[in-house]
Amino acid sequence: MSKLENPIQEELSKEKPKYKVIGTRPIRHDGTDKVTGRAIYGADVKISGLLHGKILRSPHAHARIRSIDVSRALALPGVKAVVTAQDLPPVADKIEELGEGAINIKYLQENILAREKVLYKGHAVAGVAAINPHIAEEALALIEVDYEVLPPVLGVRQAMREDAPLLHPDLKTKSLGEKTDKVSNIAQHIQYKLGDPEKGFQEADFVIEREFTTSTVHQGYIEPHNATALWNADGNLTVWCSTQGAFMAQRQLSDVLQIPVSKIKVIPAEIGGGFGGKIPIYLEPVAALLSRKTGRPVKIVMSRTEVFEGTGPTPASYIKVKMGVKRDGRIVAAQAYLAYEAGAYPGSPINPGCMCIFAPYNIPNVLIDGYDVVVNKPKTAAYRAPGATNAAFASETVIDEICEQLGMDPLQFRLLNGAKEGDRKADGLPYPRIGYLETVEAAMKHEHYQTPLKGPNRGRGVASGYWFNVGLQSSAIISVNADGTVSLVEGSTDIGGTRTSVAMQAAEVLGIAAEDVRPVVGDTDSVGYTDVTGGSRVTFATGWAAYEAAQDVKRQMIERAAKIWGVSPEEVTSVEGVFQLSKDPEKRMTFKELAAQLSKTGGPVVGRATVAPRGVGGAFATHIVDVEVDPETGKVQILRYTAVQDAGKAIHPSYVEGQMQGGVAQGIGWALNEEYFYTPDGRMANASFLDYRMPTCLDLPMIDTVIVEVPNPGHPFGVRGVGEVPIVPPAAAIANAIYRAVGVRMRHLPMSPGRVLEEILKKNQKS
Amino acid sequence: MSKLENPIQEELSKEKPKYKVIGTRPIRHDGTDKVTGRAIYGADVKISGLLHGKILRSPHAHARIRSIDVSRALALPGVKAVVTAQDLPPVADKIEELGEGAINIKYLQENILAREKVLYKGHAVAGVAAINPHIAEEALALIEVDYEVLPPVLGVRQAMREDAPLLHPDLKTKSLGEKTDKVSNIAQHIQYKLGDPEKGFQEADFVIEREFTTSTVHQGYIEPHNATALWNADGNLTVWCSTQGAFMAQRQLSDVLQIPVSKIKVIPAEIGGGFGGKIPIYLEPVAALLSRKTGRPVKIVMSRTEVFEGTGPTPASYIKVKMGVKRDGRIVAAQAYLAYEAGAYPGSPINPGCMCIFAPYNIPNVLIDGYDVVVNKPKTAAYRAPGATNAAFASETVIDEICEQLGMDPLQFRLLNGAKEGDRKADGLPYPRIGYLETVEAAMKHEHYQTPLKGPNRGRGVASGYWFNVGLQSSAIISVNADGTVSLVEGSTDIGGTRTSVAMQAAEVLGIAAEDVRPVVGDTDSVGYTDVTGGSRVTFATGWAAYEAAQDVKRQMIERAAKIWGVSPEEVTSVEGVFQLSKDPEKRMTFKELAAQLSKTGGPVVGRATVAPRGVGGAFATHIVDVEVDPETGKVQILRYTAVQDAGKAIHPSYVEGQMQGGVAQGIGWALNEEYFYTPDGRMANASFLDYRMPTCLDLPMIDTVIVEVPNPGHPFGVRGVGEVPIVPPAAAIANAIYRAVGVRMRHLPMSPGRVLEEILKKNQKS
Repeated sequence: MSKLENPIQEELSKEKPKYKVIGTRPIRHDGTDKVTGRAIYGADVKISGLLHGKILRSPHAHARIRSIDVSRALALPGVKAVVTAQDLPPVADKIEELGEGAINIKYLQENILAREKVLYKGHAVAGVAAINPHIAEEALALIEVDYEVLPPVLGVRQAMREDAPLLHPDLKTKSLGEKTDKVSNIAQHIQYKLGDPEKGFQEADFVIEREFTTSTVHQGYIEPHNATALWNADGNLTVWCSTQGAFMAQRQLSDVLQIPVSKIKVIPAEIGGGFGGKIPIYLEPVAALLSRKTGRPVKIVMSRTEVFEGTGPTPASYIKVKMGVKRDGRIVAAQAYLAYEAGAYPGSPINPGCMCIFAPYNIPNVLIDGYDVVVNKPKTAAYRAPGATNAAFASETVIDEICEQLGMDPLQFRLLNGAKEGDRKADGLPYPRIGYLETVEAAMKHEHYQTPLKGPNRGRGVASGYWFNVGLQSSAIISVNADGTVSLVEGSTDIGGTRTSVAMQAAEVLGIAAEDVRPVVGDTDSVGYTDVTGGSRVTFATGWAAYEAAQDVKRQMIERAAKIWGVSPEEVTSVEGVFQLSKDPEKRMTFKELAAQLSKTGGPVVGRATVAPRGVGGAFATHIVDVEVDPETGKVQILRYTAVQDAGKAIHPSYVEGQMQGGVAQGIGWALNEEYFYTPDGRMANASFLDYRMPTCLDLPMIDTVIVEVPNPGHPFGVRGVGEVPIVPPAAAIANAIYRAVGVRMRHLPMSPGRVLEEILKKNQKS
Repeated sequence: MSKLENPIQEELSKEKPKYKVIGTRPIRHDGTDKVTGRAIYGADVKISGLLHGKILRSPHAHARIRSIDVSRALALPGVKAVVTAQDLPPVADKIEELGEGAINIKYLQENILAREKVLYKGHAVAGVAAINPHIAEEALALIEVDYEVLPPVLGVRQAMREDAPLLHPDLKTKSLGEKTDKVSNIAQHIQYKLGDPEKGFQEADFVIEREFTTSTVHQGYIEPHNATALWNADGNLTVWCSTQGAFMAQRQLSDVLQIPVSKIKVIPAEIGGGFGGKIPIYLEPVAALLSRKTGRPVKIVMSRTEVFEGTGPTPASYIKVKMGVKRDGRIVAAQAYLAYEAGAYPGSPINPGCMCIFAPYNIPNVLIDGYDVVVNKPKTAAYRAPGATNAAFASETVIDEICEQLGMDPLQFRLLNGAKEGDRKADGLPYPRIGYLETVEAAMKHEHYQTPLKGPNRGRGVASGYWFNVGLQSSAIISVNADGTVSLVEGSTDIGGTRTSVAMQAAEVLGIAAEDVRPVVGDTDSVGYTDVTGGSRVTFATGWAAYEAAQDVKRQMIERAAKIWGVSPEEVTSVEGVFQLSKDPEKRMTFKELAAQLSKTGGPVVGRATVAPRGVGGAFATHIVDVEVDPETGKVQILRYTAVQDAGKAIHPSYVEGQMQGGVAQGIGWALNEEYFYTPDGRMANASFLDYRMPTCLDLPMIDTVIVEVPNPGHPFGVRGVGEVPIVPPAAAIANAIYRAVGVRMRHLPMSPGRVLEEILKKNQKS
């Protein structure tokens, strides 16, 4: 879009500092390797003497393991080892923070190899290592497991019933932070309270309350999970895997195998998508145990079906939202009840769901109850703004109904109620400088919103979303090369082009080109501790580490220039990569010129930095979507989509836009088609990309993006984090558009043709 | 040996600081990988789509290349590419320092692929890449090279003659630093002068002058040269190879291929020995060119014959030594003439030869002339104390004759004339604190020297040697792990256990165990610039970088402790890994305890350092050897060997002893058997380990070692560097022992049975 159409950006651009590198669009450093097939992914790892592993998985959704007999499998020629939970050390209860969620390592271990019970179809029971994958596969069939099949519980509300089958006889509900003696499938009940909700609803001129449900959805990354492990004779374990965080994988391995982190080296391969799903480990410990037993490296790669059935999807959920408003449109009270499926073990993204559900609005009286509930499905994992999409689907469609009743433009309504700096969040803390209202204004003024939508069965919907983003810890090292380029070592797995967005921040400080920075993602032995690639933190936090490491380099380069000119460092300035002697403009050296002299003036220059930043800036998005609904089939066609988002500062606009478009595409899939179909006995009926319907390019229009830049005061360049929030609004925006198109309110995800048609038929019967 | 036998060590130990880690003998970090075959060497590198390369080498010692026709080779099915010098870019004259010697990159390039002329048998002419090594081999035979064969010149003195065939019609002699117009095979004439040599000889009571010759000898490392290259579509070149310095290989590749260093990533594999021979590059650029032509990775591995004929041995030499002494035994004047074979291109270790020949002695009047001469043999490379062994063989046997004439104990003579702090070297500069006299005293007091040697045809010889050692540049990074261990990234290829000797210096500073440091040798993108593993510099310089990086970590850890205790860093002390609050002894934390708290107190801690140290400390050695000579066959049996050496400070005594024993073993091989046998037309007649006679365990006694520790004031722990000097004295010591055994003075290396027998027969004829 041209600037004219977005006065906010114009207004902002006035105060914007001028950057040389930041805001430009260099080609990503790993681009060629990835398009030419040179990049090494986990499945490409080759080592001498490699064995191949396979995992035996439970055919039942819920069963007690009476016994496992591996003797016949071991007898098969070519089979080198078989492992079960018996090969894992006992572990004590301990909650491990994984950057996007936490898990009790006892459960983490049981999820990797089931002990007494299997809790979902696809639950790993044993691992086999053989001289080739086919023999390993064959051996699985020879492992005899004696199961006592138990009734499964597959829905969050059924699981919450008193009479529901219990997954964990020892699971006591944690309520409002306190452990209770109540044994149930409810792992946790959390609550957020602001003001006096009861009073608030009394003051309201009218109140709307609605119920919503969403289905289990998978991240659907292209690359299946994989792990190669070599447990060396000296007790050192090396693991190559596809992970969102090498140090996170190292810590989980340390917890599960009960060996010190320093005995474990995790080498992160390139990663073919993760979206939160590649934070927990699955195959790594099994490959490690098989390697310890055989003394040889062992590689395990999942099939697509294993990925669907054996790894963490995002939770199905039940949500009830109640909102009270004044005639003038001001929201006076809001209440939400959210019950999220954790899967087989506690740990759904219920907390972020609660934190995000009303986040875009300034509401004086709020009550939010959240429930984390175990069911006989795979343990859920993080998925792009975990928990927020379900929540926004509920709150943002209720708001659309309110606007309808008020006869008020939905964006106007958001301008009126939207949160701004100083307003209190559900947790009672005030917002720092945020850019929500700017996204709403940008959307209102956008040509898309200004252009009326014509034609039958067509409708336009809007919705907003919030993600708080995280900071955590990152490290970076920068070494200056003799030709004036620099090498940058960082610890963040590069999923969305972060090698480049991190390198650009170093380049900006040093006044050199982004191409003159050579970024490397180090393994756990080769770089300082760095947290997971998730929470939209890499460009923010690892970028900050690169910024500080570059400052460290700059300081030393100034000292060298001073040494060469025989002056004190204070007399030397460095502007845009040119070192200059203040008092003598003749005395100047470019970064490259000075770099060439380092060896003769005291040796190489290396800069280092570690950060644990606090000033994380939350991100808001407001989306506009036009749809056409086929009244005969219920099929929803996306006609046009515009995503507006506050990036704080867009380091590499193309990658920000890519994240926005990717988030919207996934949101559309979630909204319209994606879901796990379960048989009554708990088997997934569509565990393949043929049957699990993800959107293809044919389903999607070109997604228009508008980057709003309200710099985050908590980051040197104003970065917020952009990866997650764009998946939050789509489901709600599309639901609102469907209503405008054919007059039916969809309150279940996905809004697949069948369900939409059903609602249309119901409506037609009524009328 | 017990302390009693070595009062110097006792005396020194009094003033010695007490260390926790330094001086102990932990198991090397890479030990298990190497004994279990897990360590990845260059030949183990595996990449998808790998092609295999072979090198066509000249059958002639000296010839002009009229034409090369590769068409038939290219036509062979399975052959993917052929390269010749025509594929290399033109380069200008430029001298490149390689850490142990320098070379004109024009010559470096011609040595990699011959242009107009081949200058030695085995000179690379073309490279072939094919789908397997056998087809590549086959293709070599199909390359038609039309040679105009020229007469070769194979000896240094023949090459210096006016009428000698010229290798380089454009090579003008550089004399005393000045370029002359004289075209010859003499590349350079250097000179060192001290005092008034002429006057000195006049003052002498008697003068002895002798001539010596030595043969070409190879380092004989176990692992042949290898290189795998991938020239990517984006212009980035990645090279895996066996090298003594990844950054050195990167720079040579940049020079030879004329692309910036930052476009080249060199990944150093484990290395199976180098001894100086793996500093120059040979296969790397050819593999790179073949990769660029094919778009696929290409691996080339040399055969043993290629290593002998195609890589750099140490020079054959002609040396004349003249010394004048007073009756009281004081040396008043010394003169030396050294002519070293450079091989096909200029660059023999003539300068170190000149620097070392009289270095152990304090001589008022000295004249040393050195000549660097090209001959039709492979370009020489560094070999353990390059040039010093040849020189010491001459000077130390002359001194033995002097002692004989004086009737003076040879060690007593060395005590009288030995160099000490303040005495001037040949370059006119005074010595800093050195430990030569301490090695002589230790040898004299050693039980070996105290015990008379009995029996016929037996003799005892002694000799001393010197190596100056080098500093250059190194970098190190240390990251603290949550469990209180640290990861250390350094850039020095580990040949002699330096991962451990470097890690130990970091451990000493941090007060943790050597095993709690995880050392990693980084590639050129992953660590700061670090010079070659050579010149006995790694434990000295890279160890120093580790020391400084550890200090950087320590500073930050103290700040964290201060933060936790809410005090200023000045109030916190750190002794042997325990952080303590000065004013409150209750407040104390171990390194591990503090490490566990980093994430909550500001994030990870990473330390960095780069060094370009000046305070290099030279190393002296004095050796004692007992031999028995078989008068029937001339075979020399080593009965007993004791090596005394000043290590400055022995970080890991076992590895110091290992270096001493290794140096002696190689020195014995050089002394008694090793040599290149050349046919008159310049072909090596013994280019295999079957015919090139290296010592086996059956040829060697257990080599006794005495480490003398005279700390180098120029290093925080007093390290000098120990790898090279032990190869310097053996040849001379054995020659002196042979004389004592059977009364013949050997003045040619090797002193093989035939040659010894010849001298014995000559002597018997005389008498």
